[in-house]
Amino acid sequence: MVDVLRGNAVIGQSGGPTAVINESLVGIVKALRGSPALGRVFGAVHAVKGILSEEFLDLSAVDDATLEAVAKTPSAALGSVRKKPTADECRTVLEICRAYDIRYFFYIGGNDSAETAHLLESMANASGYAMRLFHVPKTIDNDLRVTDHCPGFGSAARFVAQALIGDDLDNRSLPGVKIDVIMGRHAGYLTAAAALARRREDDGPHLIYLPEVGFDPIRFQEDVKRVVARLGRCVIAVSEGIHDANGQLIAESTEKDSHGNVQLSGSGALGDRLAGFVKAALGEKARVRADTLGYLQRSFSGLRSEVDAEEARVVGVAAASAALGGEHRSGSIAIRRVPGSTYRSECFVTPLETVAKVTRTFPCEWITAAGNDVTGEFLDYARPLVGPLPPIGWFTRELIPKRAH
Amino acid sequence: MVDVLRGNAVIGQSGGPTAVINESLVGIVKALRGSPALGRVFGAVHAVKGILSEEFLDLSAVDDATLEAVAKTPSAALGSVRKKPTADECRTVLEICRAYDIRYFFYIGGNDSAETAHLLESMANASGYAMRLFHVPKTIDNDLRVTDHCPGFGSAARFVAQALIGDDLDNRSLPGVKIDVIMGRHAGYLTAAAALARRREDDGPHLIYLPEVGFDPIRFQEDVKRVVARLGRCVIAVSEGIHDANGQLIAESTEKDSHGNVQLSGSGALGDRLAGFVKAALGEKARVRADTLGYLQRSFSGLRSEVDAEEARVVGVAAASAALGGEHRSGSIAIRRVPGSTYRSECFVTPLETVAKVTRTFPCEWITAAGNDVTGEFLDYARPLVGPLPPIGWFTRELIPKRAH
Repeated sequence: MVDVLRGNAVIGQSGGPTAVINESLVGIVKALRGSPALGRVFGAVHAVKGILSEEFLDLSAVDDATLEAVAKTPSAALGSVRKKPTADECRTVLEICRAYDIRYFFYIGGNDSAETAHLLESMANASGYAMRLFHVPKTIDNDLRVTDHCPGFGSAARFVAQALIGDDLDNRSLPGVKIDVIMGRHAGYLTAAAALARRREDDGPHLIYLPEVGFDPIRFQEDVKRVVARLGRCVIAVSEGIHDANGQLIAESTEKDSHGNVQLSGSGALGDRLAGFVKAALGEKARVRADTLGYLQRSFSGLRSEVDAEEARVVGVAAASAALGGEHRSGSIAIRRVPGSTYRSECFVTPLETVAKVTRTFPCEWITAAGNDVTGEFLDYARPLVGPLPPIGWFTRELIPKRAH
Repeated sequence: MVDVLRGNAVIGQSGGPTAVINESLVGIVKALRGSPALGRVFGAVHAVKGILSEEFLDLSAVDDATLEAVAKTPSAALGSVRKKPTADECRTVLEICRAYDIRYFFYIGGNDSAETAHLLESMANASGYAMRLFHVPKTIDNDLRVTDHCPGFGSAARFVAQALIGDDLDNRSLPGVKIDVIMGRHAGYLTAAAALARRREDDGPHLIYLPEVGFDPIRFQEDVKRVVARLGRCVIAVSEGIHDANGQLIAESTEKDSHGNVQLSGSGALGDRLAGFVKAALGEKARVRADTLGYLQRSFSGLRSEVDAEEARVVGVAAASAALGGEHRSGSIAIRRVPGSTYRSECFVTPLETVAKVTRTFPCEWITAAGNDVTGEFLDYARPLVGPLPPIGWFTRELIPKRAH
C-alpha cells in the first residue's frame, strides 16, 4: 500500500507547440480529475514563466466540452515558452509549489523540459518536499531518447508527406527543380518523412538531405544534375539544420543580409541559398523554386495523424496514472511498439535523466550509402505513425501515334 | 435544330495548377463521353506545348475509376505549361487540329488561356474550319472577370485560412511578430482569405496587405508597433505582389543577393525583407518570423473545399454541354450566385473576349480605410466558397488569485 500524496497539481506546456500537445494536456487533466488525492489542477500560463509570475488557470473548473475542443486544437492552449529556468529560478518554482501546495508537477515538452523536471526533482528531494514530477514527451523533431517516437511527430510528418505529395505533382505539372526546407535542427526524422510521399518509382522527393550527414554543395549539385538528366525535374527535401563537414550550418554561412542575423525557421535564407547552388549548376535560366515549410508543419489546423493524437492523449493519461499510482515518484513517459503484424503501442515510465539533455539523432543505418535518401526501414517505422495518406490518381503516359508531322 | 458537329476533342490544362483543376478535366471528359457526335477525346500533354509537339493521351479510353481518382488529385494531371502561343504557333495548332479532326477545343486556365482560345477562334473562323472553343476557368488568384469567382480559389483560400488559424495559435503560444507571405501577384483575394481564420476579437491575422494598396514600409512599421503594443504579438498576412506607391515590388527592391534574380514565389526574399522592417521598428531582439506559404497553397494533397471541387467539376460539364449544345460556338464558363439565403451557384457562358487578357483585382470597397484589412463583405463572399473551417477550443484567460508574492 503506497502513501497517498494529497495536494494540487500543475501542468505546463513548454517549447515549440505541436498539433496534438493539447491532447496530452487534456489527458492529464481528465485522468487526475477522478482522484480523491487531488485538490485543484493548475495550468501554468506560458509554462515556467507563468509559474514564476504566478499566472495560473484553474483547469479543475473547465467543463468536458471545452476540454475536448481544446484537445483537438493545435498549439499550446496554456501558452508556451522557450526558457530553461536557472537553478535560482527552479528554487523559486519550488517555493511557489509550496505556497500553492502543488504536489504533482507535469511538464509537457522536449529534452529541456525533462531536464527542468529532473532539476526540480533533485531540489525537492534535497529540501524534503514531497512532490511527484513527470515529463510528458512532445516534439515534432522526434529526437527524445528511450521512447520509440514522440507525440507531435506523426502529425508534423503527415503534414510534410501531404505537402510533398502535392508538391511533387505540382513539379510534374510544371517541371523544374523544387527545394523544400523542412524543420529539424539536429534530427532528420521530419525531413525523412518527405519520403512517405512517394508512390511511383519516379515520384519525388528525389533527394533527401538530413542534418546527420555533412552537406557538400558540390555533391548536391551533382545529385541534382543527375536527377534532372534522368527525369527532367527534381524535388528535394532538405533539413533546415544541414551543415558542412566542419559543422558550419549552410543557412548560417549565407552572406549576412541587411536584416541582421539569420535564424533557421521563419526565414527563407537556406532555401534561397540552395536555389543559388542549383542555378549555378544548371544555369540561370533553370526553373528553380524553394519553399520553406515553416511553422505550418507544427500548427496547421485541421490536419493531424489520428494515431499521433491518440498517443498524445495516452501519454498524458499515463503520466497522471503513474503520478497517482505512487510506484514512481518521477519519470518521463515513453512509448514502445507492441510486437505483432499490426501497429500497436504501449507506454512505460523511464527515469527523467534518461531523456533529459542529450537528444537522439536519425539512425545512420536508415540513411542510404550516398547520403541523399532514407531506407525502407524508416518508411516502415514512420508509416503507422502518420496514418494512411491521401490517394492519388494518374493517367498512364502512353501517347497516341502522331498524325501531322 | 442545330447542326451536329462531328469530330474529336482536345483538352489542355494551362498555367499554375490548383487542387481541383482535375475535377474540371474529368467533368469535360465524362460529359463528352455520351455524345454520338464525339469521336475521341485527346488530352494535350503540357497544354499547348503538347499540341505543338503532338503529345496526346487518349482520354476516351480511360476507365471511370481512374478518372475519379484523377479528379480528386491536386495539380494538372495532363501536365501544364506557362506559355502563351504566338500567332504562328496558333496557326500550327490549327493545322494539327485539322490533322486530328479536332472540332472541340477545351482550355482550362486563366485569362491567358481565354486569350489563346479567342485567338484560335478568330483563326478558325477566318479559315472556315468549324470548331467549338471553350475556356474553363481555373485560378487560385480569383482574378478572372465576369465570373463571381474562379474554381481553384476556394481550395487555396481554405489552405490559407487553415494555415492562419494554426499560425495564429502558434503565435499566441510563443508570442512575437509573424509574417505570412501569400500568393497573388496582382489580385489580393487569396491574401484576404487569411481573414477567415479569425474567430475571436484578438485573433490574427491582425494586419492584411494586398497588392491593390500601395505598401508603405513606414506605415507598416507603425501598424505593427500599434498591434504589438495592444496584444503583445502580431500576425500579418501579406501578398507576394505588394509594391510601393511607384509600383515597385517590395520583393524586387530587395538588395540583389548572390543567387541572382528574385522571383515572387519559391523564394523567401519578401518575407525576410519585411521581417527586417519589423526588426528595425521593434529592435533586433524582437522575435520576428516570416513564412512564405509557397506552392503548398495550390497543390497540397488531401485538402480542398468541397464547394470548390463541385464547382470545378460543374464548369467542366458546363463547357462540354455548351460545346455539344451548339447554342454557343465559343465562350468561357462563368459562375454566378443564385439569390437566396443559402449559397447556391449556376453556370453561364460568357464571350471569350470578356475574360481574356485583362484581369480583375480585389474590390477597393472591400478594403478598410486604413488599407491594412478587409471588410465583412469580403468574408460573406468568401465563406461559402471555402466551407466550414476546423473549430478551435480555448480556455478563458481568468487567472486564479496569487498566493506567494
